[in-house]
Amino acid sequence: MSSEAAVELLLNIVWTCLGAFLVFFMQAGFALVETGFTRAKNAGNITMKNLMDFVLGSIFFFIIGFAIMFGKDAGGFIGTTGFFSTYGLADADGMFHGLPIGVFMIFHTVFCATAATIVSGAMAERTKFSTYLIYSAAISIFIYPVTGHWIWSDGWLSGIGFHDFAGSTAVHMVGGVCAFVGAAIVGPRIGKFDKNKKPQAIPGHNIVIGALGVFILWFCWFGFNCGSTTGAATNLGDIAMTTNLAAVVATVTVLFITWFRYGKPDVSMTLNGTLAGLVAITAGCDVVSPYAAMAIGLIAGFIVVIIVELLDKVLKVDDPVGAVAVHCGCGAMGTILTGVFVKGSVLADWGMSRLQFFGIQVLGVVSVMAYVGVCAFILFTILNKTIGLRVSAEEEIDGLDMHEHGMSAYANFRLYDDR
Amino acid sequence: MSSEAAVELLLNIVWTCLGAFLVFFMQAGFALVETGFTRAKNAGNITMKNLMDFVLGSIFFFIIGFAIMFGKDAGGFIGTTGFFSTYGLADADGMFHGLPIGVFMIFHTVFCATAATIVSGAMAERTKFSTYLIYSAAISIFIYPVTGHWIWSDGWLSGIGFHDFAGSTAVHMVGGVCAFVGAAIVGPRIGKFDKNKKPQAIPGHNIVIGALGVFILWFCWFGFNCGSTTGAATNLGDIAMTTNLAAVVATVTVLFITWFRYGKPDVSMTLNGTLAGLVAITAGCDVVSPYAAMAIGLIAGFIVVIIVELLDKVLKVDDPVGAVAVHCGCGAMGTILTGVFVKGSVLADWGMSRLQFFGIQVLGVVSVMAYVGVCAFILFTILNKTIGLRVSAEEEIDGLDMHEHGMSAYANFRLYDDR
Amino acid sequence: MSSEAAVELLLNIVWTCLGAFLVFFMQAGFALVETGFTRAKNAGNITMKNLMDFVLGSIFFFIIGFAIMFGKDAGGFIGTTGFFSTYGLADADGMFHGLPIGVFMIFHTVFCATAATIVSGAMAERTKFSTYLIYSAAISIFIYPVTGHWIWSDGWLSGIGFHDFAGSTAVHMVGGVCAFVGAAIVGPRIGKFDKNKKPQAIPGHNIVIGALGVFILWFCWFGFNCGSTTGAATNLGDIAMTTNLAAVVATVTVLFITWFRYGKPDVSMTLNGTLAGLVAITAGCDVVSPYAAMAIGLIAGFIVVIIVELLDKVLKVDDPVGAVAVHCGCGAMGTILTGVFVKGSVLADWGMSRLQFFGIQVLGVVSVMAYVGVCAFILFTILNKTIGLRVSAEEEIDGLDMHEHGMSAYANFRLYDDR
Repeated sequence: MSSEAAVELLLNIVWTCLGAFLVFFMQAGFALVETGFTRAKNAGNITMKNLMDFVLGSIFFFIIGFAIMFGKDAGGFIGTTGFFSTYGLADADGMFHGLPIGVFMIFHTVFCATAATIVSGAMAERTKFSTYLIYSAAISIFIYPVTGHWIWSDGWLSGIGFHDFAGSTAVHMVGGVCAFVGAAIVGPRIGKFDKNKKPQAIPGHNIVIGALGVFILWFCWFGFNCGSTTGAATNLGDIAMTTNLAAVVATVTVLFITWFRYGKPDVSMTLNGTLAGLVAITAGCDVVSPYAAMAIGLIAGFIVVIIVELLDKVLKVDDPVGAVAVHCGCGAMGTILTGVFVKGSVLADWGMSRLQFFGIQVLGVVSVMAYVGVCAFILFTILNKTIGLRVSAEEEIDGLDMHEHGMSAYANFRLYDDR
Repeated sequence: MSSEAAVELLLNIVWTCLGAFLVFFMQAGFALVETGFTRAKNAGNITMKNLMDFVLGSIFFFIIGFAIMFGKDAGGFIGTTGFFSTYGLADADGMFHGLPIGVFMIFHTVFCATAATIVSGAMAERTKFSTYLIYSAAISIFIYPVTGHWIWSDGWLSGIGFHDFAGSTAVHMVGGVCAFVGAAIVGPRIGKFDKNKKPQAIPGHNIVIGALGVFILWFCWFGFNCGSTTGAATNLGDIAMTTNLAAVVATVTVLFITWFRYGKPDVSMTLNGTLAGLVAITAGCDVVSPYAAMAIGLIAGFIVVIIVELLDKVLKVDDPVGAVAVHCGCGAMGTILTGVFVKGSVLADWGMSRLQFFGIQVLGVVSVMAYVGVCAFILFTILNKTIGLRVSAEEEIDGLDMHEHGMSAYANFRLYDDR
Repeated sequence: MSSEAAVELLLNIVWTCLGAFLVFFMQAGFALVETGFTRAKNAGNITMKNLMDFVLGSIFFFIIGFAIMFGKDAGGFIGTTGFFSTYGLADADGMFHGLPIGVFMIFHTVFCATAATIVSGAMAERTKFSTYLIYSAAISIFIYPVTGHWIWSDGWLSGIGFHDFAGSTAVHMVGGVCAFVGAAIVGPRIGKFDKNKKPQAIPGHNIVIGALGVFILWFCWFGFNCGSTTGAATNLGDIAMTTNLAAVVATVTVLFITWFRYGKPDVSMTLNGTLAGLVAITAGCDVVSPYAAMAIGLIAGFIVVIIVELLDKVLKVDDPVGAVAVHCGCGAMGTILTGVFVKGSVLADWGMSRLQFFGIQVLGVVSVMAYVGVCAFILFTILNKTIGLRVSAEEEIDGLDMHEHGMSAYANFRLYDDR
């Protein structure tokens, strides 16, 4: 290796590590969004679920998931080597996919944990802590790594040219599909639907904390998207620009949609609009123009509102924080829209027609949705029928903090009795 | 380009992107400072104003502001090319001012948005949300970019040797002047002055959140000041040291001033002291010694207290969070003090006498203050006379969250009736 | 210097600065952990103590501490040059220990301030603010820099091969020993022990804020441990992996210990478990394997629970946030465990037997503990006998915010009378 190449490798290591640290910090963002947008009586519990998603994800991805995702490919479907000895996958110089394996591994660990942590919000305020831990291990062992293998390793989707740069599908939609299945199976919170099945608003208890969570996620998303180059590159600024423009256009779109529809600009929906834009641009942030990014943000703004209403009014699935709309809806849509808005010059490099590429994107989204949906359905159904997914009505009414952890998150504050 | 030069460019890209990400995260800091230091009944509204400052700033700076700031110069006053096609300003290799244009653009986008977001705090708790959005767009379209052109592009101040390294004037004073004009025109909050015009304390509702905001701003300020090299350099540590020393000396100065003056060390004033030091050192952080930085911090500590009292007791302008004192007062003073404390060796390199340079700094501050002051005065006066700047007395008393957004930021908490 | 070497130096500067910025941001994490885990009536005061730890630490380390730590060595015990002119320690090119001295100095400034800030939590809710400021200056002047000289400069421990990569001993145990001595001398909070000396739980007032503090600390710990290379290196990912694996295993260990022992998984203990793992791995994160890191995390999980109970039940020392268990207990244990788990290949490079190295680690821990313990004992005893360490009972019961700062951190919230 020439000495400039050595320095460039060190620079790539620095950049990838920075990306990994920022993606790690997303855990704080998710914890605050989910806590702020739910009730005070469950704040300790939801924090713990977020924490344990990362904790169990880190452990199980290290010992099993990484091998399934990046081990020697079997049939384009799954990795088969490296279990309990992931470091053994590296070459003689300790390198793997162009980086020292430790750098590559910390980067993918934090991505896996991000997928895991999306679910806790959708199932918040009524899911048993002990059961939740089992789900949390499962997603890191055999759900995320399998579709991750398809998309980001030697899997079949990667082989046919599916493009999901930083994980609209691989991370967000995977988490979002699990969130949808989990929320549907665990059922709505007591009081979410009245006797006529009309949805009732259950306001979050701390909008400032929720907003801080969104700002943290946005900050870290620059690491998520720009870091996914896993190396210094001349287009890092372009990726940051598309990421940011999609986010801001989605935000202002939702602001005005809620203003027209409800008469007032809605705070928590607008904050979800930001996340919607970020999720949607993640797949194509490296291959679309700034104006295309703005178009993707605009569409994401509509999608998130439509899916929130669809869940509430049609499907009667209770998702307290809007995780399904943001991560599943905008993750899928953003991946497909990459097929619509990808720059012509990029298609020319790839030697694909727009229609062909669009078809591949749709196929990828549908396939991943099917695999994850089936796994999540089987997993949550078994958990539900055996040890039980849901706390008792009494525990739910009193709050999960008191019954599951013997504490209140706000010991010195006077709260309303009905919490 | 030699291959080391290519690697060095990649390193500069990495450093500038990191700086941009940190400056983006300042938005969270501003949101928390402004929210924490005002009342609970307006917490959702102030958060939304901060969010929309960044959102509208990003959009309008991309399509218009960047062209005014960095387009082809006309008379040293304004840029004239690149509207709606900012990427077109790059050269054939996509470069602009030594960086890929996307990198340069994301960096300047977040700086612009920082200036915009300073105003919301000074006008907090009584300004209409809809009107505020118009101001927020305006600063990013024709206020910040024009003086930005003078200082950081091919403008006349840049031409005569005005030195504002990271934006004491270009960012903070611009935001601070708008904050002063806006706060004066919208008028004081109900209850801020009693019938004898004596100022009354209206305590902030969450000092912990406010302090977190200050810590976030401080953290990000290392990106703001050190990142303003827009490239790796041997003096990054020196810039970090001057930045930090000014901040800590200003903090301890305000601590002792309030202790002597009020009998107890004041928490929120001391936290503003930290910001005062950071704002003041921003102009000269690269050209002053560590001990000079400490002197600048010391002076900033006095300035912030004096201006807070001046607004309260003499001018009767109600600035709920102290934004005018911090950003306008210390921004102006820090820029001028750069003329006092700049290292002799730097002056020698520039071929200027200290008096000459001091004169240029004063001229720059006064000119920018005049342009921004006039623009802000015209803008806020028109808004005030037409669609109205201020909510009704009833809305103000009940809180802007309820009337403007139909929500409470703290649904589960019992608050005091008078909020 | 060849031009690649110049670029590599710039890259090392970038990496070290990033590490310094992240370690700075730990101040926010500590402030939130300490505030969240104590009562609302003291929230402003504890925030101020954290702030002033960093402020005074930065000032005194710059003018005195740095010279003691890195000045010309006298007898392996102390540095003797550079007082009030730390920049003068650099060579003709401005370099010091392989970096421009400003870079080196900002990095070590934030480490010093981290040690200082550990103490405020253990002494929270009853220590006088004015007296606390004196302690805070003292640790940065003559406690931390002396043992820092031994370990990280030309001191005797460094000479015999003591290994404390990022500061389990140099930072955390130094802070933790001061915390123990201070908490013991200031005495327990009113109500912490009943008349039979049985410990009573005094719940923290904001677990969400406390958890956010832990997430911030974890995020910044990647800067703390990986940044301690003070340069780009191929093992940055390995350090991040060992750091993370120790943290997650410690977290899950404490989760299950509390679950078995108290019947419910305890939220605040589990969060302290994360910090315990992080502190413990800090000494050896660069020389142990991932599975060894998991073992260190497992042991740290037990240690933190045991020491918390030891303080409560046996020693009757009141440490409101568990700082002694986390920083002193796991700092010491992690340093010693580095002697147990260090890779054989590393020992071979060092030409040491495992037993020999283990002995050196034990000797280092014991020596540092003795020096710091004696200094802290003398310091706190003198402060206690002269100006007094503790507020009056009335002040303690009403809260330090009201008496020491004339404010409430939560002016708009209804709190419980007994706070």
